[in-house]
Amino acid sequence: MSSKRKNGSPFELRSSRTVWSSPWFSIRQDEVVLPNGAPNAFNIVNHPGAVWVIPVTPEGEIVLIYQYRQSVEDWCWELPAGGIKFGISLKGTVRQELKEEVGGTAEAIEKIGEYYTSNGISNEVAHLFLATGVVLEERRPEPAEVLEVHRVPIAEALRMVRSNEINDGPSALALLLCEGELRALAGTLPDAGQVEAV
Amino acid sequence: MSSKRKNGSPFELRSSRTVWSSPWFSIRQDEVVLPNGAPNAFNIVNHPGAVWVIPVTPEGEIVLIYQYRQSVEDWCWELPAGGIKFGISLKGTVRQELKEEVGGTAEAIEKIGEYYTSNGISNEVAHLFLATGVVLEERRPEPAEVLEVHRVPIAEALRMVRSNEINDGPSALALLLCEGELRALAGTLPDAGQVEAV
Repeated sequence: MSSKRKNGSPFELRSSRTVWSSPWFSIRQDEVVLPNGAPNAFNIVNHPGAVWVIPVTPEGEIVLIYQYRQSVEDWCWELPAGGIKFGISLKGTVRQELKEEVGGTAEAIEKIGEYYTSNGISNEVAHLFLATGVVLEERRPEPAEVLEVHRVPIAEALRMVRSNEINDGPSALALLLCEGELRALAGTLPDAGQVEAV
Repeated sequence: MSSKRKNGSPFELRSSRTVWSSPWFSIRQDEVVLPNGAPNAFNIVNHPGAVWVIPVTPEGEIVLIYQYRQSVEDWCWELPAGGIKFGISLKGTVRQELKEEVGGTAEAIEKIGEYYTSNGISNEVAHLFLATGVVLEERRPEPAEVLEVHRVPIAEALRMVRSNEINDGPSALALLLCEGELRALAGTLPDAGQVEAV
């Protein structure tokens, strides 16, 4: 990550083993010796990372998902997102998620940045992208997904971040990181009206 | 959460059990029946949630932490943060983390919002706060923490978010959500100079 200023760990790693696993993520237990000589153990969610993408249509709308998440037992407003799969590039994963989750294809895809989602307990990295020229076609949702696809004017999506209606952290972060670029895009386009269900 | 528009789950819950646990988080396995009648199982990181706080000093600086995280095997720029403990209020946890991590006390603490950190696999909620009038005194770090405390001018902290040097997602989100308020605070104060180690 670009933030690295110091190199190397201040901890001496004694052992690292997987103590639980599933097809989606596992738990790694690292035993270390701290700089003061004391032993310590960390339990870490080992996750391959995921992509989030802001899909902007030629009409200046953002495509949002409204989805039920069993994890939080709540309906969530989110950007299209999905876990990284072995052998597929990050941009390839973005194109796949756009296709699967909202039935979209993009003209251009640009990296915004990468941020840890929860570095106290997890190594998951959120890779954030902006996709422009997104055209919606037929979508093929995964069976376990219960979701709605909505096209939302750019200003409305930004309002939904600040009002906490968009409650998915990486989605909110991606939208605010692109606020200037998104408002510039909105300024060059006619008003796209209210939230519209696809 | 304020985003709730629909009520209730579209899934029929068949069973919910803990399949792995530690003192910090556990793994919950929920077996459900999908709306199409198919069975499905979700593995969920069960976490009590955590607070993140933007500490602003009377001189218009933000107090940042530069910390080694075993989870990601990387040094991270972050806001003070910490897990919610049973029997302590959110604001009480904020005051405790300010004290423990940076040796700070705050005049006022204001809630910014709450966002899921990784709702595809986890129920962790990031509760975001802004603390003003923060005075730094002696700090008592936890033994497993290897961290530096830095005072950074507001404009510099916001630049560090956009440049991806601050790579902790909830920290970056909190700072951008408060950008207007922080720039207003900075505008009322003399220039606080460069990044300064405490």
